[in-house]
Amino acid sequence: MRNKKKIINDPIYGFLTIPYEIIFDLIEHPYFQRLRRIKQLGLSHLVFPGAQHTRFHHALGALFLTIKTIEVLRQKEVEITEEEAEALGIAILLHDIGHGPFSHALEQSIVSGIHHEQISKLFMTRLNDEFDGKLSVAIQIFENSYPKKFLNQIISSQLDMDRMDYLNRDSFYAGVSEGVIGAERIIHMLNVANDELVVEEKGIYSVEKFLVARRLMYWQVYLHKTVIAAETLLVNLLKRARELSKTQDLYATPALKFFLQNEIHLIELYQDKKIIELFSKLDDFDIIASVKVWSDGEDRVLSRLCQDLLNRNLPKVEISNQEFDSSRINKLQKEMLAKGYNFDESSYFVFSGSVQNSAYTEDAAQIKILKKDGRIIDISEASDNYNINALKQPVQKYYLCYPK
Amino acid sequence: MRNKKKIINDPIYGFLTIPYEIIFDLIEHPYFQRLRRIKQLGLSHLVFPGAQHTRFHHALGALFLTIKTIEVLRQKEVEITEEEAEALGIAILLHDIGHGPFSHALEQSIVSGIHHEQISKLFMTRLNDEFDGKLSVAIQIFENSYPKKFLNQIISSQLDMDRMDYLNRDSFYAGVSEGVIGAERIIHMLNVANDELVVEEKGIYSVEKFLVARRLMYWQVYLHKTVIAAETLLVNLLKRARELSKTQDLYATPALKFFLQNEIHLIELYQDKKIIELFSKLDDFDIIASVKVWSDGEDRVLSRLCQDLLNRNLPKVEISNQEFDSSRINKLQKEMLAKGYNFDESSYFVFSGSVQNSAYTEDAAQIKILKKDGRIIDISEASDNYNINALKQPVQKYYLCYPK
Amino acid sequence: MRNKKKIINDPIYGFLTIPYEIIFDLIEHPYFQRLRRIKQLGLSHLVFPGAQHTRFHHALGALFLTIKTIEVLRQKEVEITEEEAEALGIAILLHDIGHGPFSHALEQSIVSGIHHEQISKLFMTRLNDEFDGKLSVAIQIFENSYPKKFLNQIISSQLDMDRMDYLNRDSFYAGVSEGVIGAERIIHMLNVANDELVVEEKGIYSVEKFLVARRLMYWQVYLHKTVIAAETLLVNLLKRARELSKTQDLYATPALKFFLQNEIHLIELYQDKKIIELFSKLDDFDIIASVKVWSDGEDRVLSRLCQDLLNRNLPKVEISNQEFDSSRINKLQKEMLAKGYNFDESSYFVFSGSVQNSAYTEDAAQIKILKKDGRIIDISEASDNYNINALKQPVQKYYLCYPK
Amino acid sequence: MRNKKKIINDPIYGFLTIPYEIIFDLIEHPYFQRLRRIKQLGLSHLVFPGAQHTRFHHALGALFLTIKTIEVLRQKEVEITEEEAEALGIAILLHDIGHGPFSHALEQSIVSGIHHEQISKLFMTRLNDEFDGKLSVAIQIFENSYPKKFLNQIISSQLDMDRMDYLNRDSFYAGVSEGVIGAERIIHMLNVANDELVVEEKGIYSVEKFLVARRLMYWQVYLHKTVIAAETLLVNLLKRARELSKTQDLYATPALKFFLQNEIHLIELYQDKKIIELFSKLDDFDIIASVKVWSDGEDRVLSRLCQDLLNRNLPKVEISNQEFDSSRINKLQKEMLAKGYNFDESSYFVFSGSVQNSAYTEDAAQIKILKKDGRIIDISEASDNYNINALKQPVQKYYLCYPK
Repeated sequence: MRNKKKIINDPIYGFLTIPYEIIFDLIEHPYFQRLRRIKQLGLSHLVFPGAQHTRFHHALGALFLTIKTIEVLRQKEVEITEEEAEALGIAILLHDIGHGPFSHALEQSIVSGIHHEQISKLFMTRLNDEFDGKLSVAIQIFENSYPKKFLNQIISSQLDMDRMDYLNRDSFYAGVSEGVIGAERIIHMLNVANDELVVEEKGIYSVEKFLVARRLMYWQVYLHKTVIAAETLLVNLLKRARELSKTQDLYATPALKFFLQNEIHLIELYQDKKIIELFSKLDDFDIIASVKVWSDGEDRVLSRLCQDLLNRNLPKVEISNQEFDSSRINKLQKEMLAKGYNFDESSYFVFSGSVQNSAYTEDAAQIKILKKDGRIIDISEASDNYNINALKQPVQKYYLCYPK
Repeated sequence: MRNKKKIINDPIYGFLTIPYEIIFDLIEHPYFQRLRRIKQLGLSHLVFPGAQHTRFHHALGALFLTIKTIEVLRQKEVEITEEEAEALGIAILLHDIGHGPFSHALEQSIVSGIHHEQISKLFMTRLNDEFDGKLSVAIQIFENSYPKKFLNQIISSQLDMDRMDYLNRDSFYAGVSEGVIGAERIIHMLNVANDELVVEEKGIYSVEKFLVARRLMYWQVYLHKTVIAAETLLVNLLKRARELSKTQDLYATPALKFFLQNEIHLIELYQDKKIIELFSKLDDFDIIASVKVWSDGEDRVLSRLCQDLLNRNLPKVEISNQEFDSSRINKLQKEMLAKGYNFDESSYFVFSGSVQNSAYTEDAAQIKILKKDGRIIDISEASDNYNINALKQPVQKYYLCYPK
Repeated sequence: MRNKKKIINDPIYGFLTIPYEIIFDLIEHPYFQRLRRIKQLGLSHLVFPGAQHTRFHHALGALFLTIKTIEVLRQKEVEITEEEAEALGIAILLHDIGHGPFSHALEQSIVSGIHHEQISKLFMTRLNDEFDGKLSVAIQIFENSYPKKFLNQIISSQLDMDRMDYLNRDSFYAGVSEGVIGAERIIHMLNVANDELVVEEKGIYSVEKFLVARRLMYWQVYLHKTVIAAETLLVNLLKRARELSKTQDLYATPALKFFLQNEIHLIELYQDKKIIELFSKLDDFDIIASVKVWSDGEDRVLSRLCQDLLNRNLPKVEISNQEFDSSRINKLQKEMLAKGYNFDESSYFVFSGSVQNSAYTEDAAQIKILKKDGRIIDISEASDNYNINALKQPVQKYYLCYPK
Repeated sequence: MRNKKKIINDPIYGFLTIPYEIIFDLIEHPYFQRLRRIKQLGLSHLVFPGAQHTRFHHALGALFLTIKTIEVLRQKEVEITEEEAEALGIAILLHDIGHGPFSHALEQSIVSGIHHEQISKLFMTRLNDEFDGKLSVAIQIFENSYPKKFLNQIISSQLDMDRMDYLNRDSFYAGVSEGVIGAERIIHMLNVANDELVVEEKGIYSVEKFLVARRLMYWQVYLHKTVIAAETLLVNLLKRARELSKTQDLYATPALKFFLQNEIHLIELYQDKKIIELFSKLDDFDIIASVKVWSDGEDRVLSRLCQDLLNRNLPKVEISNQEFDSSRINKLQKEMLAKGYNFDESSYFVFSGSVQNSAYTEDAAQIKILKKDGRIIDISEASDNYNINALKQPVQKYYLCYPK
């Protein structure tokens, strides 16, 4: 009955279908419903106003692509049992369930030192209890302890369905059509050899294009200088709020308040069920609703940072390939002193840092090419791919933000 | 300097450009930035997860189409001065600025009796003060007191740029491709005759298609039965919260609290500047953040309604062409009594009502066709349009909601 | 081996896959390959330059949608055996194989009195011989003599996969985005009841939109007045060529020559294998290559008509809801006399006629709605569909063409 | 009057508008109308059935992008006079007017040694005569003899509107979505500095993506191995036809016959007006209509090659990074001898060759980046573009074709 509505509209793939009963039930769970309230791209919508899509929709999209991949591989006579297919579906569905709101900013301020994958695993473990162990295989695949290694590569590698969907989805909603990738084409060229996920040789140029699209999305969207400015503003704002919370009962929505007043480590998350339950209530609405209240508050630093965020009065950003001179930064901070802020306060307004991205790395789950003669090689070694070799160079950029 | 970034990405039209300095400044104003935090389609994303787009983006899109329309009309030697063009841009940009969060639900619960257009006008008046009277012509066009009547029709008629953009945008983000309309084509066929906005004869089929697309969007998206269920749930929940607020200090974010505790009428909005200022702080985040707190609260009615909304545990809905039998409703309410709720409480869970839509009406700003022989006729009279004539019939449907 | 390449790029659906070995073999057959050389929309590209797509591509697209439909119906537990699925695939693949080049024009000039469906059946019969009877079930479905009637409705009714694909494809390539229909959505709402193909009730608005889109495509593209002018020009030109062929050895490519010099009736096509073989060699290239030669020929009527077609110097067209006055036509013809053409010749340049279309008819395979209560009704009776009722009115328009 | 219809549907950009009277007149000229009968991608539709678009449509698309570029540059206060804008429009419109049917194949068989750009210029010169010298500035820009050098770069450089449109158009119609480029975005980032067309620094990643998309289109579409096989088949077939024409009166359509029987050099084209007139009559229909006749002819080599092309019975192709061993080729030719062909004949069926492409070259019109500090550098030197540097490596591949 309740399972009848198994078709979900998606502007990108047309229709998303929910393939297994248990996946439908997991989607209905409050842990997963919460992802409806967490934007996939945090504050990027301040630059790309269409980028309002949620982690909920991304998870369903990645599920869709995973199901497609299973179909294609089965047609190529790769054995994937029904149990494995279901588990793979669960694993990709829940791969990002541990994300908090504004994940990057949060990890640098309120839940520092805890990686969202660890929280994802914690959520999965709790759901496994609730669902009588039916997520066990999914967890093994997620942790890469399942015997068939290629299953993990479908959901976690440099050519996984997570990236495939998020690049498509982020570029679609941001309106950056250049980030669109030919997911369907790449999936059609996937295969498995020696228990490894591989791309058939004719797919080399599509993969190259995928890597360049990803590179473009990083520098043009994810690490767009104004997005960096906004996110760092949020980090500073949350740090200030936490600082103030030490000495006063600063307003916050209940879910946020706990994390503002307590410093949480991974060990406590694992030991105290109450904490993960609290974390499961935290979403974008807690952050922004609190920011709105703080914007009218008494602390002049916090209120100004909050107003600046809400009204998109973002700091000026400079980008450079070299680290910024400390004298330059000092000079800018002094200007804040002149405006009546003290030194400690000024560091909330003038700040610098760096961002880094590699289009392709050789350490992590590499992209393997299956040559027509049966050999499996790394894509950067495939003849003529001068290009992918070049993409291995990590790129680092430095930023400097200060009030307009 | 700050005006440099005048190009905004839009997945639908590619790039939105900001044509006038003052429009750029209005976009930067907190009143307008607030629209970033108000979803265009309220709770529809519970059915169409992509429908997360904001009133901010819609306003920019409608502005874009209005600029296009001005270009096309000028090419056809319709006189539109620069002053009028700017004013028209301002008027369309701000046409929806009076919307509160979850506008429909709000108008039925917390700010009942006040239409969002009235609030839009109030915001415009205040902005006109701030901007030294530079919005005067825009306000005249918006109120339809400006001599050239066709200007108002561009932004407020049955074929206006508001509808043109929202149909395109809503169908795009919802993933309901059938709602897409050929805005560019229709705009190319617009003209002005006798100070009226008209469509050239060859555009008849495009307009027919536009009307049918709109009809489809109403019944398939805006009035989708699950969306109705969710919105009515929100109405009930807010009514309960307001009821409880009379006797206790119910939690609410500051902006919401005022409207929960006070019954506001249009007259007070006009007289007390503080109220419109408070209203300008109200957005989706106030509603959902409060709902989240209430979901853990003590009132069993309010907490259950809130949980049901957050976890998408929506009521069952039945749709009918006839009004539901009161005995049927009574029976369902009695089932709630059996579950321990009293009669008053049960009405929050079992409820019925009706929705209505006309694809085309003859009263309001009609769609006029300019025949090749120069005559101007109503589109429903244009020969062969049996069809549009039929679309004038209003359609009413009744719904009945109750817990699963 | 040769069957490996079973994936074909399609800008509309992404990838077309070829589901059965025999379908792959049929595609490779010269009868079917010939469709690569026949444009789906004849001369429409003179108005819509993108409309260059072929009957080959349409047939593959309709096959794709048919396969989807089979999948959806099977999920709803409609029984379709593998043999039936294959036969249905064959039937839709070959449904248009009998089309000649510029089909409409040809049927009014060179192969008059023979409907392309009859030729399709003839081709199928011959292929059935070649393929050892493996097309027998397909032919039964095509002729609607197969017991399960709903199978025929999938490929031949007012909501069949032929229309579904051609509306999508024609509007896509023509760049008339308003003709796009939600094929995938409609397919998802198909079902079978009482051996009839039906649409589930919630699909009513999508079907309405489909009918209106089809209506728009007729009047905006297929019966666009300039397209009518071009096609009638071609009809006249071919009539003139046939007329001249009676008294001289007019140039023509070999395949065309036979049909120019002989008047063929259905009976001869059935009796003389050589004729269908000759017909199977006729394509767009014969017509246009001959027109090019004729444009430099001696007959001043034929050469001018040919030049006018090649250089898109099309006649002026007037459209009216009433038949044109014969005195008007006479007057125009007299102007041709003044230019030195005789009366007979002038009728090639001045001509009138009418075109007609019904968006929905009640005679032919109707569109049935499956109500939630299990009843099956005609869509025009479904409550609130004033609109579809209106669409039943046939629309007729008269045209008058004459030289600029 | 006749200029009223200045809006042309385009599936890619929506609507193409014709900006100047003279451009409208040039479009109407038979030289330009002929491009309606020449496919942009020759035989690629045998692999990508949607790739039926014509050089006519591409020229209009490139014109559209050029007009956009002019708009953008003018907004950035680059001076482009109305006369220059018109001339630039003419130059891009006519840039490909010298292409014959199946241009690559033709240049290797029938009009060998003559580059299509030279013929384009010849056509322009003749049109300039007809249009009373109104194309003079356009010709100067086309030849790069006009003082403002950046104008030529807009229509002829490694980032010109020709490439911008053909990549978009070819990938769109072929259904290879990965080839889509963000033309609008790149255009928005163009500027002029020191009389050079430059890309603003922030556009680096878009340009990189453009180059990689182009590389992909080359290896995936233009040089797709089956496309190579088909085109080489056509080359061989035309060579055979020319060979036979030396000793017999081989059938051919009149326009083709001349070029089959005569070897034409550039000098004759310039000297003999009749020849360019004949060339202006040659299009796809001459080639394919003749191939159809030849397929039933007596020469067993020619007839078989023609049948193979028409029925898409293409040779088997092998691709390698090394030249193929001559012994391998000999062996394959011997197999043809065994089938009764003589040595000379067998070379029409067994053949090898190579194709080459560079994604970016440093010799020709380079892509210049305008740094924020005002410096202009080559894109491959822009910091972090390891990648574009790598793209400079030319890639060469060898192919070997032989009958299945």
